[in-house]
Amino acid sequence: MFPKDPITVVEVGPRDGLQYESMFFPTEKKIELINRLADSGLTRLETTSFVHPKIIPQFKDVIEVLDGIDKRPGVIYSALVPNIKGCQRALETDIDELALFVSASETHNRKNVNMSVAESLEALAEVAAMGLKAGKRLRGYIVTAFGCPYEGRVSMDRVISLIDAYRRMGVTEVSMGDTTGMANPRQVMETAHEVLGAAGDTYLAGHFHNSRGTGLVNILAAYQAGIRIFDSSAGGIGGCPTAIGAMGNVATEDLVNMMEEMGIATGVDQDKLIAAACFAQEVIGSDLPGYILKSGRPDWHSLRI
Amino acid sequence: MFPKDPITVVEVGPRDGLQYESMFFPTEKKIELINRLADSGLTRLETTSFVHPKIIPQFKDVIEVLDGIDKRPGVIYSALVPNIKGCQRALETDIDELALFVSASETHNRKNVNMSVAESLEALAEVAAMGLKAGKRLRGYIVTAFGCPYEGRVSMDRVISLIDAYRRMGVTEVSMGDTTGMANPRQVMETAHEVLGAAGDTYLAGHFHNSRGTGLVNILAAYQAGIRIFDSSAGGIGGCPTAIGAMGNVATEDLVNMMEEMGIATGVDQDKLIAAACFAQEVIGSDLPGYILKSGRPDWHSLRI
Repeated sequence: MFPKDPITVVEVGPRDGLQYESMFFPTEKKIELINRLADSGLTRLETTSFVHPKIIPQFKDVIEVLDGIDKRPGVIYSALVPNIKGCQRALETDIDELALFVSASETHNRKNVNMSVAESLEALAEVAAMGLKAGKRLRGYIVTAFGCPYEGRVSMDRVISLIDAYRRMGVTEVSMGDTTGMANPRQVMETAHEVLGAAGDTYLAGHFHNSRGTGLVNILAAYQAGIRIFDSSAGGIGGCPTAIGAMGNVATEDLVNMMEEMGIATGVDQDKLIAAACFAQEVIGSDLPGYILKSGRPDWHSLRI
Repeated sequence: MFPKDPITVVEVGPRDGLQYESMFFPTEKKIELINRLADSGLTRLETTSFVHPKIIPQFKDVIEVLDGIDKRPGVIYSALVPNIKGCQRALETDIDELALFVSASETHNRKNVNMSVAESLEALAEVAAMGLKAGKRLRGYIVTAFGCPYEGRVSMDRVISLIDAYRRMGVTEVSMGDTTGMANPRQVMETAHEVLGAAGDTYLAGHFHNSRGTGLVNILAAYQAGIRIFDSSAGGIGGCPTAIGAMGNVATEDLVNMMEEMGIATGVDQDKLIAAACFAQEVIGSDLPGYILKSGRPDWHSLRI
């Protein structure tokens, strides 16, 4: 039987989601989206990225966005920081948390940031030290933690050693990413068991992509193994329901619906969350992949009988 | 941890799927689809429906389809039979199995077939007797077994009493339908445990719709509880990835992929199955909701890195 412990949802739509949207989501709309998501009861928000705007123009307004949002008490606002330069810019804002990343796969890391994993870790250690000194919380992503499209399966030892490297930098929470949706529930449950046993005080989160429709089932497998923090994206921003290979994060409202229907508390007001996801969909101007956006909650009258 | 017992997949795309497609799927293409699905290793195929063609014109070619397919040895070919007239027509063909249906919800049954549940059961008993006499296998659907959009939750006793009614008619397998995708994994696991304990010799199947993205996770919850037979539709035929409320069955290739990735045998050749689903998608001429159709199998090179 499933446990009933509450979960924490880390909303990554404004960053991991928008990163993959081709349209520029206007700055004031980003601010409104982040504020609405915070108002829905989400306490963890990855808001933007300090990646160079030449690489991802979507985040050229990073400073305006962070200056524009109304920070709600009790909400932790996070931003992705790829390197020292990004960190220096981040430290000029009052962001609460810096999110770092490295791939478990050498090939993927090389293609993503043109560095070996060891080189990335060295650079991240410098970023982490700078962030810690400024009193920031640190979150670390392990990209391709459940498999890499170039290298295939990733070893458990590799994942555990990266968690350990993060821990030594002062990172308090590590999010294991199924970046291209390759994981299956057995693998997730086994990995989560093993990694939870080895992670000590480090909080572990699951970040599952829905490329093969397995986002929710992998989340539930991780939950059964003891993971209690999950990343998701409002509306499934960043994925497209029809484009080849372009399914992104699990939609936050789909995750919250499933958990709340199971009696697992998320602390989120579903109606407000759905309204925020609808808002994002209207701004983007095309269908987002989330299911609840189309079918409504189970206690709404279904449109298909 | 998850068990490793093999599962049986009941392919319902040519019936439950095509029932919801607005375009007429040409007769010779239906025949080709059914033959290709059988060639992929699927051993259970719901091929068509003996519903009156005025109600669902898609199945006006029921006789031509059944006459046209090459029946493969070891494959059980099934057709939906709504009433005595449909049964009489079915018995003129060499279909192996008749699929009957009744809703767990009075309101849903009334809206679906304009009869009370008791009236439906009386009519089904007559159909069942006629089918048994002709040597046919019988399968029974419990529609809205996990909840009804009109009446909400359905009682476990109701489901168990319908299984019992089916058993007394000579039905050997009952498929419990989450017709509008309202179920959550906890409810599914609890229901499956309870119902398996009460079902005696009757085989139980799970028929989960993906309206809220919970199709695969509900299937895995039912599997954890001991269900080993699952209905699905190649490509997710019958659902539309963008239409409101119009998500149908779980896509067969998504189900097979998840199970095979977990080391759970399905007996299906995934490449042939995906090719058959692609064929259906080409005939329909618009995107089907299946994920593997877009992202490919995990060991294929992913298109999104």
